[in-house]
Amino acid sequence: MKEQNLPEFKKIVALAGGVGGAKLALGLYLELKSQGRATDLTIIGNTGDDLELFGVRICPDLDTVMYTLSDLVNPAHGWGVAGDSFTTLEMLKRYGEDGWFLLGDGDFATHLIRTQMLKEGYSLTAATARLARGLGLECSLLPMANEDVRTKVQTLEAGKLPFQEYFVRRRASDTVVGLGFEGVEKAKVSAEVQVAVEAASLIVICPSNPYLSVQPILAVPGMSDLLKNSPAQIIAVSPIVGGVALKGPAASIMQSLGGEKEASALGVAKYYAGFAQGFVLDELDAEQATAIQNLGFKTLVTQTVMKTEADKQRLATHILEEFLPR
Amino acid sequence: MKEQNLPEFKKIVALAGGVGGAKLALGLYLELKSQGRATDLTIIGNTGDDLELFGVRICPDLDTVMYTLSDLVNPAHGWGVAGDSFTTLEMLKRYGEDGWFLLGDGDFATHLIRTQMLKEGYSLTAATARLARGLGLECSLLPMANEDVRTKVQTLEAGKLPFQEYFVRRRASDTVVGLGFEGVEKAKVSAEVQVAVEAASLIVICPSNPYLSVQPILAVPGMSDLLKNSPAQIIAVSPIVGGVALKGPAASIMQSLGGEKEASALGVAKYYAGFAQGFVLDELDAEQATAIQNLGFKTLVTQTVMKTEADKQRLATHILEEFLPR
Repeated sequence: MKEQNLPEFKKIVALAGGVGGAKLALGLYLELKSQGRATDLTIIGNTGDDLELFGVRICPDLDTVMYTLSDLVNPAHGWGVAGDSFTTLEMLKRYGEDGWFLLGDGDFATHLIRTQMLKEGYSLTAATARLARGLGLECSLLPMANEDVRTKVQTLEAGKLPFQEYFVRRRASDTVVGLGFEGVEKAKVSAEVQVAVEAASLIVICPSNPYLSVQPILAVPGMSDLLKNSPAQIIAVSPIVGGVALKGPAASIMQSLGGEKEASALGVAKYYAGFAQGFVLDELDAEQATAIQNLGFKTLVTQTVMKTEADKQRLATHILEEFLPR
Repeated sequence: MKEQNLPEFKKIVALAGGVGGAKLALGLYLELKSQGRATDLTIIGNTGDDLELFGVRICPDLDTVMYTLSDLVNPAHGWGVAGDSFTTLEMLKRYGEDGWFLLGDGDFATHLIRTQMLKEGYSLTAATARLARGLGLECSLLPMANEDVRTKVQTLEAGKLPFQEYFVRRRASDTVVGLGFEGVEKAKVSAEVQVAVEAASLIVICPSNPYLSVQPILAVPGMSDLLKNSPAQIIAVSPIVGGVALKGPAASIMQSLGGEKEASALGVAKYYAGFAQGFVLDELDAEQATAIQNLGFKTLVTQTVMKTEADKQRLATHILEEFLPR
């Protein structure tokens, strides 16, 4: 039956940040896999969070998606490798290095391969593809760009911080008053991103932080136009449920940066108004649906809190049934 | 009493390869440390065994000495870090990489710091010093040169092999018919090596493989002359006891490459004749002492098999008492 509703040529692109986005990405992956067409899914990941430590290139958001989809992820954190050891980091500390960024030994393998490939002249897209293939991923995982983009967070308390300094070292405790994406002016939409978007029937903005995770992707020159000009519908899933962020500092940033009195699904919808055509909000926020429709969105009100794999796949199925053109 | 015999200005240089050499290096270190003058010891390590894997620079011999002297070494192997985990290597294998060279997670920390420092433009000498200091070493550990030198082993069975291919991957099972030290013509005696040798009162060639471990050091242009022209006595400790190598393929190489009918302390002495003035052989080989003396050596016959820390320090003490100028 489903094969009829979702013919094989209908390709899907998902934009994802880290833990929150990876959940729906997994749902989409599981659903398409169950239909035997996981290859129709392309996930475009944020690389504004990337950093270099101990000489290796770390792509936290890409890795979170990759580990989540390959069932390797540490379920307690939503990132990192399940059951990982931390011997390298302990030894680095013994050498007097700072171990503020938790890097597991298994995780290091990912960074070593990536770093070596980049050093050998491969693009980040090629390195990401090799890693994802190595872990058995059947869908495509693409960095938003091959060029280095570094999100800088302007905070009230500590000035301008590299993203992971703000997010990990200072536990996202500062008030965010501005964002910058260093190097983004030199970034380009890669051929792989362009091909995927142009072939897409549906573009899903996963429930990631609009400012910290999605904005860097959209800031890549040409990306926003590429998405808007594609024939695909763009739909966004609210990362805010019942006025709180399911993960991370999205709620407080919507207040400090977005100028919203309170974080809400409606606030997220306002952020994507004029860009996305569909909006998915939680049943808990059903009373906001009309206001969101008044912004021009087609809405889907459903359970969006994803705890189990079944939750994730169910949300993905609802989204595909609702928004994928028949 | 010892302070009288070994006044503080008498500096010692040890040339060492891997596991065998590190044992006596530890003995010397423990003995000088017990005299409160560990800083008088400089160990010059072989880097012909070095390799790059997964983008990191590995210096097996330097690391073996460093781990041995910092009491971190895996006592079962004589190399690697005791109690190390192997999660990174397992994950690398999962990505389809070849895990033939056993790299522990703690070990990776060493290679990461070294690689990053080299990338930042520091010399291998500087990187080695930083690592050794990080592990609390009070003596100096110097690579034989800052430039890359790569030992190539010409074998009867498999042609020319990079050292670790011969030594680790093929378990030193091939017949060695020739040796080359790629890049050695561009290597130079570093300022640090020169200062240490010129200040030395005694130069100890540790019981390492003369061909595989010591020859690369002596092959650095200017090194052999620097050692010979130093006012210090040069003494060599036989790695062959009772006709067999205590560790590794020294015995068979002495036959295939050295043209010796049988491996023996005398054969080792012939190798160093005209270069070293003193020779240390095991009590088991006492009957060879006269022949070795006839080659021009002053000999010390003593227990040279080092199992415990006490064995190592005892041999070091004997050597210093016998050969250090009073």
